[in-house]
Amino acid sequence: MQKIKSALISLSDKSNLRPLLQELKRHNIKIISSGGTFKTIRKLGYKCLNISDFTGFKEILGGRVKTLHPKIHAGILNKRSNKSHSNDIRKNNFEHIDLVVVNFYPFEKMIEQTKNHSKIIENIDIGGPTMVRAAAKNYNDVTVITSVDHYSELINELKKNRGSTSLKFREKMSRLAFDETAYYDAVISNYFNKFNNINFPKRKILYTNLIESLRYGENPHQMAAFYSQNIKNKLEQIHGKALSYNNYSDIFAALTISKSLPKNTGTVIVKHGNPCGVSALKNSLDSYKSALSSDPISAFGGIVSCNYKISEKLALMLNKIFLEVVIANGFNKKALKILKLKKNLRLIDSSKISFNEVWKFNSVNNFTLIQSEDRKIFSKKDFKIVSKKKPNRLQLDNLIFAFNVCRYTKSNAVVLASNKSTIGIGSGQPSRLDSCEIAVDKMNKFSKTRNEIVAASDAFFPFVDGIEKLVQSGASAIVQPAGSIRDKEIIKFANETNTVLVFSETRHFRH
Amino acid sequence: MQKIKSALISLSDKSNLRPLLQELKRHNIKIISSGGTFKTIRKLGYKCLNISDFTGFKEILGGRVKTLHPKIHAGILNKRSNKSHSNDIRKNNFEHIDLVVVNFYPFEKMIEQTKNHSKIIENIDIGGPTMVRAAAKNYNDVTVITSVDHYSELINELKKNRGSTSLKFREKMSRLAFDETAYYDAVISNYFNKFNNINFPKRKILYTNLIESLRYGENPHQMAAFYSQNIKNKLEQIHGKALSYNNYSDIFAALTISKSLPKNTGTVIVKHGNPCGVSALKNSLDSYKSALSSDPISAFGGIVSCNYKISEKLALMLNKIFLEVVIANGFNKKALKILKLKKNLRLIDSSKISFNEVWKFNSVNNFTLIQSEDRKIFSKKDFKIVSKKKPNRLQLDNLIFAFNVCRYTKSNAVVLASNKSTIGIGSGQPSRLDSCEIAVDKMNKFSKTRNEIVAASDAFFPFVDGIEKLVQSGASAIVQPAGSIRDKEIIKFANETNTVLVFSETRHFRH
Repeated sequence: MQKIKSALISLSDKSNLRPLLQELKRHNIKIISSGGTFKTIRKLGYKCLNISDFTGFKEILGGRVKTLHPKIHAGILNKRSNKSHSNDIRKNNFEHIDLVVVNFYPFEKMIEQTKNHSKIIENIDIGGPTMVRAAAKNYNDVTVITSVDHYSELINELKKNRGSTSLKFREKMSRLAFDETAYYDAVISNYFNKFNNINFPKRKILYTNLIESLRYGENPHQMAAFYSQNIKNKLEQIHGKALSYNNYSDIFAALTISKSLPKNTGTVIVKHGNPCGVSALKNSLDSYKSALSSDPISAFGGIVSCNYKISEKLALMLNKIFLEVVIANGFNKKALKILKLKKNLRLIDSSKISFNEVWKFNSVNNFTLIQSEDRKIFSKKDFKIVSKKKPNRLQLDNLIFAFNVCRYTKSNAVVLASNKSTIGIGSGQPSRLDSCEIAVDKMNKFSKTRNEIVAASDAFFPFVDGIEKLVQSGASAIVQPAGSIRDKEIIKFANETNTVLVFSETRHFRH
Repeated sequence: MQKIKSALISLSDKSNLRPLLQELKRHNIKIISSGGTFKTIRKLGYKCLNISDFTGFKEILGGRVKTLHPKIHAGILNKRSNKSHSNDIRKNNFEHIDLVVVNFYPFEKMIEQTKNHSKIIENIDIGGPTMVRAAAKNYNDVTVITSVDHYSELINELKKNRGSTSLKFREKMSRLAFDETAYYDAVISNYFNKFNNINFPKRKILYTNLIESLRYGENPHQMAAFYSQNIKNKLEQIHGKALSYNNYSDIFAALTISKSLPKNTGTVIVKHGNPCGVSALKNSLDSYKSALSSDPISAFGGIVSCNYKISEKLALMLNKIFLEVVIANGFNKKALKILKLKKNLRLIDSSKISFNEVWKFNSVNNFTLIQSEDRKIFSKKDFKIVSKKKPNRLQLDNLIFAFNVCRYTKSNAVVLASNKSTIGIGSGQPSRLDSCEIAVDKMNKFSKTRNEIVAASDAFFPFVDGIEKLVQSGASAIVQPAGSIRDKEIIKFANETNTVLVFSETRHFRH
């Protein structure tokens, strides 16, 4: 237990201060403060000593230097049980500072609000983090509070221990303080790197905020949690059971595809991280029906992401099969009521989620791979027609659609499409021919209507066999990146079979 | 340009100081320092003012408070072009500090070297980061150097500009300084969380060191880099072309499996993130041959990971097919010579790599999922025999082997094995039946010798159809986690077909 006799309070966020001041007064704790915080405390009717009067040094540089003073830092940093430290304190006529309540200039908020670089820099707090780090280091003797969220815990602690804090409490607050300083400087570091267009600094720091601890990870014996860098850009769950790790993972896979489709258009069904049905038909009912018919067996227990507002009619349709999650760009009121009849069904409103972050982190062991997202927006210009037969407009549109789905399907990926909807998806195979066979098998199993069929491959065909399989199964137009030493053979095969063959400029591996 | 007249130097790492001091002297730059750094500078024969003499305040608390003084921080933080700041400096009889050369107490090194908590805490630097943060904030006027690695760049800058530094240089050094302070506090924050057994703090910071920028990511239009938290635990490439993003990704997949196999035993072949052949036979030649024969077509262009030292004979065998990477727990000298005949083949020595890190990060957009690795070591105890027919020892060993490979195969995963080697792997399918069919197809295509066949599924069979397919194709023993509402039907089917059926306690999804 450590009795608190004096507190230093310096706050950027001055909210909720009254109950804390009340409690400090109850235990006769002397308060030292300055600037705006000093004024606020006085205004609330509590006694407070100005830092300048405490140190005998007048605040200078418009507030840039006020707490960076030996009397403050010796007051915080001295080990109470160390005789030599006590001597130093006595000789210098210093005093202990037992409690440090500090929160920082709002750097993160500032970079959201302005692009003014000097204004942003002015919001780098120097004095605050120094006091917090000093107090956190000396947690054996000093209590540090870095967030308004911890006031009530401090008040309880003081109440319970009659003006003292326990080591356990100080240790916890110290840990939270270092989380805070690390986070603060991580935001600054990332800001400066971004400002200077440095993608891969020598030291890269990822900062994240806990959204929720999950019951478990991919499997029940794994621990897991869900974090976000930007707590404002959140997944809004409006109904259903708690989201699991695998739900989150599939939701991201589904949303990544949805966000790539035309505005307010398209249905995506995901299972085990892969799309098993995608349709970009404009009519939402048709779009859902088409996506579902691509592989209705796999859709069972899957995740549906609608890039549009869900109507009553669609809700009734969705309720017909077992789904884990339905994501939508908004829900019609009646639709919501219908979907909520399923108690467990998780409903996510994605209308406010932006998918703008460029960088993806992926770690294994102590290694981390960082890469930019595969967000290239492609159009007809990126497609080079290499066959004698030229695609018509419909074929071209379907090729673009199929190639886009392909990029979000795990490699090797082959997608068969017709009428802006997938009709066969082959994914996750070590051999491209296998992916072709899976895609064709799916099509033969589920697809009833057969309009013109197109096919897309996420990387080049190394041999003719893959493309042969697709053509034999009815594909009349195929898109693939160029690059095989057998490209010529493949073009020859396309011409012999009167197939449209398009080479894309880009490959779209995804693992 | 900003002329440098005075420098504050405070170093934990005092190496390579002479050329810097030489350059500072050449430009008549006044040096302020204290403690060990002061002594080192004097010993090297350069003039130096003690910080205590500069501030007029004697260092106290055994060095805990020496630089936390207004004269130091006003000297760093004042804006040279601001009149009110200049007035403050003049009135207080302060001076500018134009250059800050500081590196920190070696906190990270300390946590590697000792478990002594108070010794570790003593190595939290307070004064150093404060000076660095102040100087970095005021980079418009002040130069900050935080690493011995930047001395030569500073020397060149001073040479080029006759004792001045450019804004561009100061900006860069400021950016690097914030990378450094963020990294430093991230290490502290992670240490405290680990010390207190907090897995998921409110703010989680991942700190990483750049190992190399990569030519590109999964695809040529994506940017990428490879980072590591622990630069000592590295992938040692001893030959071949530069590693690509996809190489790294496959290497991690392969090594994760290799590290799960018995010591010095086992061959793993990976393609597109999935195993396409694994064998745990004790004889390394047999093991490689078996792994390869599981799917020799997919192995083309794949990654082979040998959990043993590669012999001359094996090297000759490996050279027969095109491989991207060979990883081994060491290479025999002659083997290395043979493998090096292939100029492009990347060779990785994995003998010094430890795979101990528990946490995996996976980010999409601004969201991050963190989970612990699936490292459960399972044995016969975790297996519950539910069929009338009991497995013999051989079957049980093969079931354990197959189930282990299954856990590292992307879901839905079904693995057929015989003689401690895979003979058919079905991966990455949205439907479990599809994975069964792929595994069986592979077996029928490639497997010549048919000893007793066992099968493993990473999660339960929802219907009888999957297990039926496996039994019809020759599997005599099957392992799967329990949990389906049709478990009883499945047990009944096993009994009717005289099949060994084992329920494992754990599921092993992996996406």
